Amino acid sequence: MKQVILTLLIASGIQRLPAQVTPADRVNPFIGTNGMGHTFPGACAPRGIVQLSPDTGTTPHNIDGVYQPRAYDYCAGYRREDSTIVGFSHTHFSGTGHSDLGDILVMPFTGERRATPGDEDKPGSGYRSRFSRDSEQARPGYYEVFLEDHRVKARLTATERAGVHAYAYPEGENRQLLVDLVHGIYNYDGKVLWASMRVESDTLVTGFRLTNGWARFNQTYFAISFSRPITRYGYEELERPAYAGFWRKMNTRENFPEIAGRKIVAFFEFGPGEEVVEVKVALSAVSAAGAAANLEAETAGKSFDEIAREAREKWARELNVVEARGTDDQLAMLYTSLYHVHVNPSVYMDVDGQYRGADHNVHRAEGFANYTIFSLWDTFRALHPLLNLVAPSRNRDMVESMLAHYRQSAHGALPVWSHMANENWCMIGYHAVSVLADAIAKGLDVDRERALEAMISSSSIPYLENTPEYLELGYVPFEKNENAASITLERAYDDWTIYRVARDAGRADVARQYRERALSYRRLIDPATGFARPRLADGSWKEDFNILATRGQGFIEGNSMNYSFHVPHDVDGLIALMGGDKSFVAKLDSVFETPLPDAFFEETEDVTREGILGGYVHGNEPSHHLAYLYAWTSEPWKTQFWTREIMNRMYRNHIDGLCGNDDCGQMSAWYVFTVMGFYPVCPGSDQYVLGAPYLPYIKVHLENGKCIEVKAPGVSDENRYVKTMKLNGKTYRKRYIAHGDLANGAVLEFEMSDKPAKSRAGDEKPYSLSNEK
Amino acid sequence: MKQVILTLLIASGIQRLPAQVTPADRVNPFIGTNGMGHTFPGACAPRGIVQLSPDTGTTPHNIDGVYQPRAYDYCAGYRREDSTIVGFSHTHFSGTGHSDLGDILVMPFTGERRATPGDEDKPGSGYRSRFSRDSEQARPGYYEVFLEDHRVKARLTATERAGVHAYAYPEGENRQLLVDLVHGIYNYDGKVLWASMRVESDTLVTGFRLTNGWARFNQTYFAISFSRPITRYGYEELERPAYAGFWRKMNTRENFPEIAGRKIVAFFEFGPGEEVVEVKVALSAVSAAGAAANLEAETAGKSFDEIAREAREKWARELNVVEARGTDDQLAMLYTSLYHVHVNPSVYMDVDGQYRGADHNVHRAEGFANYTIFSLWDTFRALHPLLNLVAPSRNRDMVESMLAHYRQSAHGALPVWSHMANENWCMIGYHAVSVLADAIAKGLDVDRERALEAMISSSSIPYLENTPEYLELGYVPFEKNENAASITLERAYDDWTIYRVARDAGRADVARQYRERALSYRRLIDPATGFARPRLADGSWKEDFNILATRGQGFIEGNSMNYSFHVPHDVDGLIALMGGDKSFVAKLDSVFETPLPDAFFEETEDVTREGILGGYVHGNEPSHHLAYLYAWTSEPWKTQFWTREIMNRMYRNHIDGLCGNDDCGQMSAWYVFTVMGFYPVCPGSDQYVLGAPYLPYIKVHLENGKCIEVKAPGVSDENRYVKTMKLNGKTYRKRYIAHGDLANGAVLEFEMSDKPAKSRAGDEKPYSLSNEK
Repeated sequence: MKQVILTLLIASGIQRLPAQVTPADRVNPFIGTNGMGHTFPGACAPRGIVQLSPDTGTTPHNIDGVYQPRAYDYCAGYRREDSTIVGFSHTHFSGTGHSDLGDILVMPFTGERRATPGDEDKPGSGYRSRFSRDSEQARPGYYEVFLEDHRVKARLTATERAGVHAYAYPEGENRQLLVDLVHGIYNYDGKVLWASMRVESDTLVTGFRLTNGWARFNQTYFAISFSRPITRYGYEELERPAYAGFWRKMNTRENFPEIAGRKIVAFFEFGPGEEVVEVKVALSAVSAAGAAANLEAETAGKSFDEIAREAREKWARELNVVEARGTDDQLAMLYTSLYHVHVNPSVYMDVDGQYRGADHNVHRAEGFANYTIFSLWDTFRALHPLLNLVAPSRNRDMVESMLAHYRQSAHGALPVWSHMANENWCMIGYHAVSVLADAIAKGLDVDRERALEAMISSSSIPYLENTPEYLELGYVPFEKNENAASITLERAYDDWTIYRVARDAGRADVARQYRERALSYRRLIDPATGFARPRLADGSWKEDFNILATRGQGFIEGNSMNYSFHVPHDVDGLIALMGGDKSFVAKLDSVFETPLPDAFFEETEDVTREGILGGYVHGNEPSHHLAYLYAWTSEPWKTQFWTREIMNRMYRNHIDGLCGNDDCGQMSAWYVFTVMGFYPVCPGSDQYVLGAPYLPYIKVHLENGKCIEVKAPGVSDENRYVKTMKLNGKTYRKRYIAHGDLANGAVLEFEMSDKPAKSRAGDEKPYSLSNEK
Repeated sequence: MKQVILTLLIASGIQRLPAQVTPADRVNPFIGTNGMGHTFPGACAPRGIVQLSPDTGTTPHNIDGVYQPRAYDYCAGYRREDSTIVGFSHTHFSGTGHSDLGDILVMPFTGERRATPGDEDKPGSGYRSRFSRDSEQARPGYYEVFLEDHRVKARLTATERAGVHAYAYPEGENRQLLVDLVHGIYNYDGKVLWASMRVESDTLVTGFRLTNGWARFNQTYFAISFSRPITRYGYEELERPAYAGFWRKMNTRENFPEIAGRKIVAFFEFGPGEEVVEVKVALSAVSAAGAAANLEAETAGKSFDEIAREAREKWARELNVVEARGTDDQLAMLYTSLYHVHVNPSVYMDVDGQYRGADHNVHRAEGFANYTIFSLWDTFRALHPLLNLVAPSRNRDMVESMLAHYRQSAHGALPVWSHMANENWCMIGYHAVSVLADAIAKGLDVDRERALEAMISSSSIPYLENTPEYLELGYVPFEKNENAASITLERAYDDWTIYRVARDAGRADVARQYRERALSYRRLIDPATGFARPRLADGSWKEDFNILATRGQGFIEGNSMNYSFHVPHDVDGLIALMGGDKSFVAKLDSVFETPLPDAFFEETEDVTREGILGGYVHGNEPSHHLAYLYAWTSEPWKTQFWTREIMNRMYRNHIDGLCGNDDCGQMSAWYVFTVMGFYPVCPGSDQYVLGAPYLPYIKVHLENGKCIEVKAPGVSDENRYVKTMKLNGKTYRKRYIAHGDLANGAVLEFEMSDKPAKSRAGDEKPYSLSNEK
């Protein structure tokens, strides 16, 4: 029995909790590291650009031009189920469904040099090592593992711009490590355009590598310091350029301090000795000199243990913002969600403020910190709104970073999905406009005129996603774009955010134009079914239409059944088009109750069966607001029912605990909001739609010193319904709460019940464009 | 007869001289553009980093790893004998024997788009065009040609950092041009690592390309402005990367302002119209923003004609420094030589002082202008000494640039052969030490301590050219290095320069050590023959030795017969080892009189039969001082005989007029010195060895306002011998003249004769280490 429990503990990656349990102790970085979570267990500082984490997979993204499906499993480089570790690389996305990075892999080893990782099934065939999962420990800012083949204990920690390694080697062995500049995530033959390394002294190495991947042209500069002097070094080149010039006349392979090529694996030896070898690897997108300055500023004179303690303190500051009561699993899930919220976006500038812009030039951030990794199709929904509540100064930095991107963009576009100074054009829409509008609606210090200019420009680019047809017809015609219906629906909402900012800035002409665009969703609701359906340019509806299918139906990462509800800015308008309240409720009910056909899972990306409730797909973002839409109907308590179902079923303190990609914190941000009992259905408005609290008590400390307290002492799976609610001691009967009411500090008290409070059907409904005053 | 003369004029590339003939009018940029001169005819500013010139050849350097011999002919991209022009690229070496560059090729065209240059023999098979040689004109800072296939008249000019094109298209044709980012000199498949372009507006394009060539990692950023708005643009990609990410979902091929890839050819259209299309292309090694700033600073608001006039004025300032009398051919050769002296090295920094250093980081030049393209094995001999005389402020910039390179070098090494922020390791030795020592000897403002530190470090690198063996044995053993004898001889001289600087800086310990090293040449002079001969580590001489052969004999780009005299710092010591004056003179005579075997030409690089006098090889640098060595003998007049022979035979006002590679101005600098009648046999000493003036009158204006006048009214091929000489009116009887005597202004008057002045055999001989006071 004990054995069983231990096994379960290991399988779920739970660490034994210390006596004095802090929020940081609650975090389980292994949540989502199997299945489809695509999170990583390694060490990073909050929003640091370095995520130093073990990579267990090396499946290339592409072999001879053919996509390798297994690559998808390794979006974060790691799967908890694997038995070997390839090494520790310094950049990882948290929870994405497409990938890149895995830059600058370091691997300690003993014995014979090997330049390739070898085969997982053939120990000794390469430099990778077996490890036992029970040797793994992960905490915020810390990771450790024992590499069995090399008998090296590896510990990792990080600052914002540097990964720090501590390697304890077996006695008497020559302490060796390699730096693999070929390794990468979503790798393919030719991804590394060039790599270069300089041995500056016997304890300092600098260099860079240039890659052409999801970030079309990514410049990663590095500076590496060693705590012990190098005794011998060299490299192997897995593919030589056709031309070597006069370098060929020299033996550059050993102890020659300039190393360069397309496929470089460098080796460093430190001789035998008792001392742990500490390795500090700082990154920069600006230059090797920038990386060296980052290394100096963030790590000089500090031991591994000091840096690990600092990393823990940084995380404590982010996590202690929330106090909560709940079961261990609930608190693990809450704090791990908050942890994931603060991994991406990541700071993307050197300590002196210089950063690589979207134009590939070097800029200096004036008055803001520059950030990258904007998975905006995901994160406009809840992550950025959550930051506006709990960390508005950080979100303002991100908004300014997006405005800088806009100024640098050859298209005059805000980021769509951008990372490492590159627009990667993943997914659809121009949802940065939502983030800007939300920041403005929440009162952040953002220049409205500059923001509006960027928003208008981003929504007006003729060659992106059929803008001319959208403007002419009021929708994107299906024959022009396979994602026409999703694009039209998302644009309508995005355009609504532009309308709001223009209206509030007194730009009546712009407001009028974008209000019209915001209503374009109407053209796609098929009166025959009440569901969204693509149309052709001649106005006719797509034939052979299936609201449950995704492939070929005009939608992306979702079907019509889910996507039809993507009208967060005008739910009342949508209700009318769907046949009124009763019909709308029935449709919404059907989403949660209709089982999906098997074909759905075969043809739809990023979704697991665990992420499904009937036809509701939580593993993908277009549905994230659906359960909250009951707030506009005669049966608002259904939000309370279904959100708790989703929380219980789709977020588990387990390596497989995320039902879909965490998507740079969007899935996690949804969790944090829903724990509190409200959700920003329509970012860009100032309203949070009320559901029900998930925990009996939660308190959130805001940046301005105020607090939000949510008390629901009687809450449980049975008592999931809100009977009454008080705001600051007074009965509260709206179905939403305004940002101002929370940001100035608020106490929300909920009386819970095991029965829906049908008497509250008359409470004031949230915003809709159609009913705007 | 008239026809014959016209043909000759065309063949020699001579332009008709205008009525008021200025020095710039005398320059014939076609000299050396055929045969082995490897010069280019295009437009550049003095020492500008941009050399905008037509490329006529596209032979790749390498096909599937196999060197293509024809590539060598196109070191400067152009051969006058060719009948088609591929386009106009922006970077060229002047006269090198190995190559690179040819960056950012622009070609105007009419009619159908073609993305490759096509076959020279098949007109219309690509974008290249036939041209008639009589449509070509070239002057300093200006070039024009009529492209027959496209019926476009192309005119080119340049500033230091920008190439400027003016294209006149035929009436009614769509005015088109392409920017080929694949094209290059010494190209090979895979040389371009990445190229990127942004269309910033309808008149501005920026971008960069990264290459792995002779410069192992070369970053060329550019900014291109057009005088007419682009009406349509696009690109073709000759090889697609295996992975295109989400860019694949868009039509990026046309009017999409971000273009990137490995093999990009971009097209721009300007529609039909009468106006000439002017294209300005600025370069930067720092960033595209740097290129745009260079473009703005050097070309904004200026027409093609204004910039061409400014280029001409800049050249006039450099060339008007010399006044001379002579035949048209003599003056063409003199001014073209002076022109070639001022092409390379080239300024390598943005207008704001930022530049790319040898560590690939961006630095700011403080108190100097940063230069690149240091072909030091060649140019330490006469080019840098000439600059110390006529343009010391420029040479000081170059010395400071070398010291910056040293500080940035991972090896702690001054440049060997460096260009575009890269050490390319071409040839042998560490001759930058000679340039530093010469600058110090000539009184330039160079910090001796810093210089000495760099010199010592450069001569002490254990892994370069067998330093440990050289220090242990006093020579580099042949079994360790195929160029052992050349390296030993050249190191001995280089070490002498370090000795001199150390001695003068009062560093007795260092001076003692390097004086010893300076004598290491002695170990290689075989007492049996008096010629240099490689030795093995055990002290034995190489067997089967041939003093006339080059391959496998321990020498590089020369044979023992020529290389044995590479002891410029201790000619008296060498004379003693060679058996005394008579034997030495006989050996030296034999160099000029022994015919070389045919095998010599087959196995020796960079040499033509025209560049040979007996066994004397003027086409390669190791012999350049040989004719002046008679100054240490009993028959000094033989210098006067042979230097005139060399001048007459090996420098001709003709496309084939250079007998070997101009080598970044070294061949030309030799000419300029020898015209004046003296030569710096031993740079690092303050002595110029006297020969005889070549022209009846020459006056050189120095930077300090002083002048050197050399008068030899009776000089001719018959009257080539110096009978008497006066310095500032006083009879002068030394065989050398000190730098101080020239730099303070001097009038040298020569009485010439058709007979050697044997009575002057007792004149004071130049410096030798063995006879040092």
